[in-house]
Amino acid sequence: MEADFTNKRVLIVGLGLMGSAFAAGCKKLGFERVWALDRDQKVLDLARKEGLIDEGVNRPEDLAGEADLVVVCLYLHDALAFLKDSMPLFKEGAILTDIVGVKEKMVEEIRPILRPDVDYIPGHPMAGREKSGALFTSSDIFRGKNYILTPMPENRKENMDFLIQWIEALGFGRILETDPAIHDGKIAFTSQLCHVIAASMVDMTEDAEVTHFEGGSFQDMTRIAMINSAMWAELFVANKKELTAVLDRFIGSLTFFKNAIDKEEVETIVERFDIIGRKREAMGK
Amino acid sequence: MEADFTNKRVLIVGLGLMGSAFAAGCKKLGFERVWALDRDQKVLDLARKEGLIDEGVNRPEDLAGEADLVVVCLYLHDALAFLKDSMPLFKEGAILTDIVGVKEKMVEEIRPILRPDVDYIPGHPMAGREKSGALFTSSDIFRGKNYILTPMPENRKENMDFLIQWIEALGFGRILETDPAIHDGKIAFTSQLCHVIAASMVDMTEDAEVTHFEGGSFQDMTRIAMINSAMWAELFVANKKELTAVLDRFIGSLTFFKNAIDKEEVETIVERFDIIGRKREAMGK
Repeated sequence: MEADFTNKRVLIVGLGLMGSAFAAGCKKLGFERVWALDRDQKVLDLARKEGLIDEGVNRPEDLAGEADLVVVCLYLHDALAFLKDSMPLFKEGAILTDIVGVKEKMVEEIRPILRPDVDYIPGHPMAGREKSGALFTSSDIFRGKNYILTPMPENRKENMDFLIQWIEALGFGRILETDPAIHDGKIAFTSQLCHVIAASMVDMTEDAEVTHFEGGSFQDMTRIAMINSAMWAELFVANKKELTAVLDRFIGSLTFFKNAIDKEEVETIVERFDIIGRKREAMGK
Repeated sequence: MEADFTNKRVLIVGLGLMGSAFAAGCKKLGFERVWALDRDQKVLDLARKEGLIDEGVNRPEDLAGEADLVVVCLYLHDALAFLKDSMPLFKEGAILTDIVGVKEKMVEEIRPILRPDVDYIPGHPMAGREKSGALFTSSDIFRGKNYILTPMPENRKENMDFLIQWIEALGFGRILETDPAIHDGKIAFTSQLCHVIAASMVDMTEDAEVTHFEGGSFQDMTRIAMINSAMWAELFVANKKELTAVLDRFIGSLTFFKNAIDKEEVETIVERFDIIGRKREAMGK
């Protein structure tokens, strides 16, 4: 069954990079109303002028009670605060979702205060840009990307179906359902570790012209060091058990190579790299 | 002055990924003859059939004495062996160059045995692909890339000028001259470290479906883990002093973040990331 969004009202909470892309995507999908909540009136005015939203407000009281779908596009602590503070306001039967990059903490803190008549389906769209802030992006950034959902046992099937159809309609390429702990463990590796590596690589050099000495790898690997510091610091600390364990394993692998190089064990390095090359190839392009 | 290649004969030694791209590029530039030396007759036959070269031989004796320009596209130890063994063969006044990724060792070993009537100008084109081997590539892989030269004091000005014009004509974007020690120090960071990181990231995971949980960073960062193991192992060991020092510094930065995350020092992380973001931005896209 094709999803129909024309009788649905959506509230995007936070019109940053991701929020604006969700707003633009919902507009395209023909939602009855696309609303935004943001503390910055200029951002709301601009978003309205550019046709991204129908109306913008600064206070949850003004619209949270009328939305069928609430998409919380805030950083971890702001997202938690919004959901807690606004819990009494939501429309009966509303679907709440968020895009925060750690899921265990979200579920732990929201579940105990969740009203039984609203449905919270935690999510994590694996899309973004190196830059943050209120410069709007189109929903093109979603195209073909992964979207992870960490549903709760109490989520209603029709709401899950609706959310999945919405995600597909927005252009995402793969939807994965898993539990919050697995999500946080994998993300520590595929996303958070990458950001710590990129940051550490830039951290260790004082040479701004070092890119003259490279063939592309360095720029590829440090692109994401132009990082949204406040958001990532929150996420790293919230996922510290998984992330520090991943960092330990990574440092272990690096140290293995360092020692082999130091001892000039060429064959050991070749053998390990051959295994690694085959593993990487099995992971796809 | 526009360079004229129509009265020059070039010998490409080794028709791998880089050698075939150089052969294709020299063909386009109109060299009087484009020759190749490779131990694999099938590769030579195919290269001739595809119009990449005019003639191919298996033994240095057959053509090394007639080339004005000899481009050694072999791995470190093979390149050293070829230059040493063929030194008596080269044409008087010939320019020799190579593409090996470490330069101190090349200069150290070749300089003492270099004939005074030939000119060896060591080089390092910062271009390549994840894959190695005899599948031919076009010279498009050079477009806009960096090319590092580590000239020796005895190099003749007219030969340097010729080589630089050749490199520019092949499509490279920036030519940098530096000394072998500086080259090896920078390359340990911008190139070799990146490869060790990519390999370590793949090394530490057993989950072939881990890419389902990512937004692109992991694939960007591990793309180069589909590595040419024999070539890189040689280069790592040849540059072990610089590379192990770089690995120590990198592990130091990682450990700083690990400790800050573990102690939940959000502000420390944000401050450091802000500095890093500005540094990375100053390095360009």
